[in-house]
Order: sequence, then structure tokens, then C-alpha cells
Amino acid sequence: MRLRGVHHVGIAVSDLDEAVATWERLFGARVEYRDALDEQGVDAVSLLVGESRIELLAPTGDDTPVGRFLARRGPGMHHVALEAHDVHEAVRELASAGVHLVDTAPRRGLFGLEVAFVHPDAVHGVLTEVVAGG
Amino acid sequence: MRLRGVHHVGIAVSDLDEAVATWERLFGARVEYRDALDEQGVDAVSLLVGESRIELLAPTGDDTPVGRFLARRGPGMHHVALEAHDVHEAVRELASAGVHLVDTAPRRGLFGLEVAFVHPDAVHGVLTEVVAGG
Repeated sequence: MRLRGVHHVGIAVSDLDEAVATWERLFGARVEYRDALDEQGVDAVSLLVGESRIELLAPTGDDTPVGRFLARRGPGMHHVALEAHDVHEAVRELASAGVHLVDTAPRRGLFGLEVAFVHPDAVHGVLTEVVAGG
Repeated sequence: MRLRGVHHVGIAVSDLDEAVATWERLFGARVEYRDALDEQGVDAVSLLVGESRIELLAPTGDDTPVGRFLARRGPGMHHVALEAHDVHEAVRELASAGVHLVDTAPRRGLFGLEVAFVHPDAVHGVLTEVVAGG
């Protein structure tokens, strides 16, 4: 598994514009992209904080993965995304090691990137995304 | 506020050695440091994943901040640390903007670094650490 490092930290929020304003005001964050994934029920903003990326995720409804996360745990850190040199190879390696995956093959995620999620059960409670370089 | 980016992602775990082994096996993580902060009741391992840093935190007892976090939420993502060019200046800026801080001045944290925590109430549920460059 060859990883470049953390691609972004995903954060679940209830009000996207309010959260963007907070990150701008407190930490000098700059908006990089906005995107929506209707089939996942999520609106997202990618922020640059220094040289790193923070992804804010707001649900489009209660009965969505992020909506259920907010109902259960409240707003907060949602996932960590690791950038792979080759996301297909990374997912094949994880699958052949018997790791519990949410996505058994990369799919198109936010911002047009290929992503696959590893189940939090496999990473001591951390929802972990493997993502292709942007 | 001039920030370099994400310094590390802090993750609360119940068994430090098991979690280190998982991150090594799944994501090729390498142990950078081990440290303990008795007054905070935490044992920690800093891992390098590609060029990024993941900090695994295990409590030394139930009645510690990380012990209470685990009892309330289970293992998972605990905080995000942002590296400041000047941590003292960063904390002064946040304080003078009226931001709710856990530490109103930098203190010595894990791995000998100067750190200050911003209260999660101020960052939509995200416990955020500002840390001096290592």
C-alpha cells in the first residue's frame, strides 16, 4: 500500500455556509470547490487550510448517511481520507487482505475523484477513505 | 492566522498496540514516536502515513479526557491539529476574537510540542488543536 498521506479530513456539519464562515474566520480557510452528490445525499465544500484540505459535508435530508451520522453523534469529524498512488491497487490489496470495505471497488466521489471507503469496524472506529490523487 | 496545514489527525483508541498494528498492516504506517502525558492520562503513538501524521491516543484510565471520550462515543476520530507558523500569535488572535478556547495560552503537549486546544463548541463539534511546527 503506497499512500501519499492524508488527502483531507471530512467533517459533518448541519449548516454548510455557517461552517464555511467559521473555518474562514478562525483558521483563514479558503474555499476550493463546492459539489453535491445527490445519490449520497450530501452537499460539500472543500476548504484549503494552509496546504491541507478540510471537507465539510452537509446532508440534503435526514435519511442520508451524513443525516443519520448527525442524528446519532452530532456535528464533528466524520472520516479521514488517505491519498493513494493507485487507488485501484490499494483497494485490491485491502480486499485481498480480507479488510471490511464499504466499497469493494473505487467509485466516483465528490469533486470527481475516485474513492473507496473502508468500514470503520476495520480501523478501530475510523471511517477511512482511500482516494486517488486530485 | 497563518497556518501550514493539518499537523496530525488525533484518534482515540482503547488498545494502542492493536491500533498501531492495524495502521501498519492496512496503510503501511510507520511509528514515528511514542510518548505519554501523565497529567493528561494519555499514552500516544505518532504514526507517519505517507507524508502525513496520525496520532493514536489511548487513555491510562477511565477518568481521563480520552477515557471519558471512549466511554461516551467509542473509539474514533478525536481531534484535528493545525500547525501554526507562530502558535502564540495564533492563540492570541483566537482569544482576542472571543473564540472559546480550552487553553488560553500554549502549553507543552505530546512529543514536546507547544499546543493549545480550541473548544469544539467554537468549531461545530470539532476539537481543534493549534500546534507549533515540530
